[in-house]
Amino acid sequence: MKKEDKLLELVKEYQKEIILLSNATALLGWDQETYMPSKAIESRSEQVSLLSSLIHEKLTSEKLFDAVKKLRNSKSVKGDDKIMIEKLYKDLLKARKIPNEFVKELSKTQSLAVKAWKEAKTKSNFKIFQPHLEKLVKLKIKEANYIKIPGHIYNSLLDSYEEGMTAEKLKPKFEKLKIDLLSLLNRIKNSEEYKKREIKLMKKEITNEMQMYFIKDVIKRIGLNEECSRIDFSEHPFTTKTGFNDVRITTIIKKHNSLSSFGSSIHEAGHALYELNMPENHKYDILGDAPSLGIHESQSRFWENMIGLSKPFWIFYYPKFDAKLNLNGNLNQWYKEINNVSAGFIRVDSDEVHYCLHVILRFEIELGLIEGSIKVKDLPLVWNKKMKEFFGLVVKNDSEGVLQDIHWGWGNFGYFPTYALGTMYAAQLYEAIKKKYPKIEEDIEKGDYSKIRLWLNDNIHKYGRKLLTEEIIKKACGEGLNPDKYISYLNKKYSEIYLE
Amino acid sequence: MKKEDKLLELVKEYQKEIILLSNATALLGWDQETYMPSKAIESRSEQVSLLSSLIHEKLTSEKLFDAVKKLRNSKSVKGDDKIMIEKLYKDLLKARKIPNEFVKELSKTQSLAVKAWKEAKTKSNFKIFQPHLEKLVKLKIKEANYIKIPGHIYNSLLDSYEEGMTAEKLKPKFEKLKIDLLSLLNRIKNSEEYKKREIKLMKKEITNEMQMYFIKDVIKRIGLNEECSRIDFSEHPFTTKTGFNDVRITTIIKKHNSLSSFGSSIHEAGHALYELNMPENHKYDILGDAPSLGIHESQSRFWENMIGLSKPFWIFYYPKFDAKLNLNGNLNQWYKEINNVSAGFIRVDSDEVHYCLHVILRFEIELGLIEGSIKVKDLPLVWNKKMKEFFGLVVKNDSEGVLQDIHWGWGNFGYFPTYALGTMYAAQLYEAIKKKYPKIEEDIEKGDYSKIRLWLNDNIHKYGRKLLTEEIIKKACGEGLNPDKYISYLNKKYSEIYLE
Repeated sequence: MKKEDKLLELVKEYQKEIILLSNATALLGWDQETYMPSKAIESRSEQVSLLSSLIHEKLTSEKLFDAVKKLRNSKSVKGDDKIMIEKLYKDLLKARKIPNEFVKELSKTQSLAVKAWKEAKTKSNFKIFQPHLEKLVKLKIKEANYIKIPGHIYNSLLDSYEEGMTAEKLKPKFEKLKIDLLSLLNRIKNSEEYKKREIKLMKKEITNEMQMYFIKDVIKRIGLNEECSRIDFSEHPFTTKTGFNDVRITTIIKKHNSLSSFGSSIHEAGHALYELNMPENHKYDILGDAPSLGIHESQSRFWENMIGLSKPFWIFYYPKFDAKLNLNGNLNQWYKEINNVSAGFIRVDSDEVHYCLHVILRFEIELGLIEGSIKVKDLPLVWNKKMKEFFGLVVKNDSEGVLQDIHWGWGNFGYFPTYALGTMYAAQLYEAIKKKYPKIEEDIEKGDYSKIRLWLNDNIHKYGRKLLTEEIIKKACGEGLNPDKYISYLNKKYSEIYLE
Repeated sequence: MKKEDKLLELVKEYQKEIILLSNATALLGWDQETYMPSKAIESRSEQVSLLSSLIHEKLTSEKLFDAVKKLRNSKSVKGDDKIMIEKLYKDLLKARKIPNEFVKELSKTQSLAVKAWKEAKTKSNFKIFQPHLEKLVKLKIKEANYIKIPGHIYNSLLDSYEEGMTAEKLKPKFEKLKIDLLSLLNRIKNSEEYKKREIKLMKKEITNEMQMYFIKDVIKRIGLNEECSRIDFSEHPFTTKTGFNDVRITTIIKKHNSLSSFGSSIHEAGHALYELNMPENHKYDILGDAPSLGIHESQSRFWENMIGLSKPFWIFYYPKFDAKLNLNGNLNQWYKEINNVSAGFIRVDSDEVHYCLHVILRFEIELGLIEGSIKVKDLPLVWNKKMKEFFGLVVKNDSEGVLQDIHWGWGNFGYFPTYALGTMYAAQLYEAIKKKYPKIEEDIEKGDYSKIRLWLNDNIHKYGRKLLTEEIIKKACGEGLNPDKYISYLNKKYSEIYLE
């Protein structure tokens, strides 16, 4: 065997082992949230921490890095292998900038912060979380300084979730988006229709069994089959990949908000479908993965919003719901109710029009925290001020305000923007699909998503991480990120509901 | 820190990591049998194989072995630490006798053999399994020659499951047991009661929900609580430890043999209770484990047979079953039916009197295979001959004959005897408990097993692996293995049923 071939084999073996260990870690995590007996938590944490350190050991091994460096300079490495080596080089370089001691300190701080966040949230008292968050912010600034991507200091954190994205690119897009959303909201809220809107049909309680019946029906239509996936219950819905051909989603059934588990299952199914369609020939290397969280979120938001909240979707599903539930209403009323625009405190319960404002609020705060212009101790004040400004709402307590998301407790700064990016991409993707299949709504009205699924496979899924998110979106939609597409989608849809 | 303390810390860290990796591997296995989507099997096998090789790497590390050797010769190592170092030294020495290459070859052969066994069993054709079994037997003889425990070559295999046990000790016990069992069977089968016995009540179908209701009731009474354990469904029932305070059992509900899942769940609960009560201060070292499979099986067989098939147990449970199921019979009839003696082909479905004969049959064949006096190709003939001789039955096909158990496909030679050992120990334990609590049956009649559980904790569970099985049994029962106790238990019980 040639020397290069041997090196390439070694590099692939390392990646395979890292992926297999990550799968096993994912299963430990999945089990913890679904089936694990409560008192097992201590030894479970030890198991996860050991596997994580084994993964880190492999990622930072000199042998792997040497091989990658040599292969980078070899002319015989071509095609996908070349792309893989470049991506890997970038990842390893980044991982190696961060000292082991720092990784341990961060991980310890995170786990204490999450614990404190839970207590703080329960007691609705930010003060309990504050010292932990202060330490975390300091550490994340330190981390950003290790990584040192050019431009704004935030870029070094953002890049871990959204490779290639920067604060400089994001700020003007979010500013424009904010103005457009507030202007649309202003029009909606002044409409007659808005003032007389009411929630009737959605108040109907749906039994757990019936909810699960519809959830299983829709995720199967989206493309999840039981040979490669499953759905279980957990406190917070999530998607996790526990192996090749093995992706799991979870849901939580809420009796008094029956449609929320239906919508969130569609969301998770979008994530799962993406994971299940990663290129098989890269199942054990770095390219069999998404290039960013934003594009991952584009898949979940696509199915959740563009499909699951659309009229054609409910033309198919409303009669089925009605038949089982005796709704005593009509499709139009139902459609208005599921798309009811209403300012609320909680991001995950938000309607489409308010959603990105929640994200932009957090983005502005994160920038301030990382730049140093906002102090952690002032967070509740800052948060509540922005909630008033964006939503016109007065936050009554920390729990529904600054403490609502767990992400900062995890130390995930730079993560929130991917929610808005995915939401915007989703609108662009839907437009591209409609261009290719002008009559696609007729399929959706029949509950047939096969063309859509194939289009997503062909234009998004199949690339894995071979291209950057921006490159994939450009190929698929003819242009990169364009908030106007999302805005015009919202304008059209919500004008029809409220302004016509 | 003293040099010895550092070494001891290192040795404990190694053991902890091995145990944590084993827990994770156990979870991968548990999931595979309970919830895993079918197409995930390939990547699951890769995950398990990687974790197993990481465990093997740690077990055979020079650093660990050096530390153990040094600590063995240190006078400052005392108490439990000393016992731990001695046990570990023995285990490592054994593991290190077996070359890595051999381990890989054996593991590959096993996995092909299991596959072949499944096909052979389905097609009821031993020939499909034969070449694989031939290779496995050769390898196991090779393995025994690596390990080389004094005496019979079989000892080197037996010792892996039953530390300290030998063919020399076992043979006379099994020979005596066989004679006594055949003689008891002879008496039973010539009785009037035997000739007129009939199965009526047990034919009643019990719904899955009702079966699970009773299973959950009984395992809770035995001592499994939901904070540390759970029960799920799998094709074959098993118990697995997926962490400290985390033990899982499984069951399979059989509609047409309703009591079998109840009994097998009691069996698995016995295993689980043992695992849950291992000494907590040894949760991450070698001493927090059972000293042998035989003693583990004594716990499951104790609950399954001595309790679950006893009259006092059914004095409590029969009215409950009757209330839910309208059995239209009486306790005596029920008791006779669940203890119905009937020669059958299948070990796992066997009554108490025939059970050990199934094991002895396999033991005799294993001895022959490992000694070389029985050829693999003659196995169906040998098996069928012994079935006629022991049970008076004519085997109609390989599937219900020589192919019924998967164990040989796994390469588990020396494993079967532990089933009979556990069964015999269970009778000895029950006698010891009755000596301590002469009125214990009154508790059992009330569904109260607290004294029994505490006695088992105090006399078996709490030792972990600090003592050998024989030592634990001697302390608990005043003597080591004594088949006569089992025989006299059977004689008394089945004379009451058939001969009075």
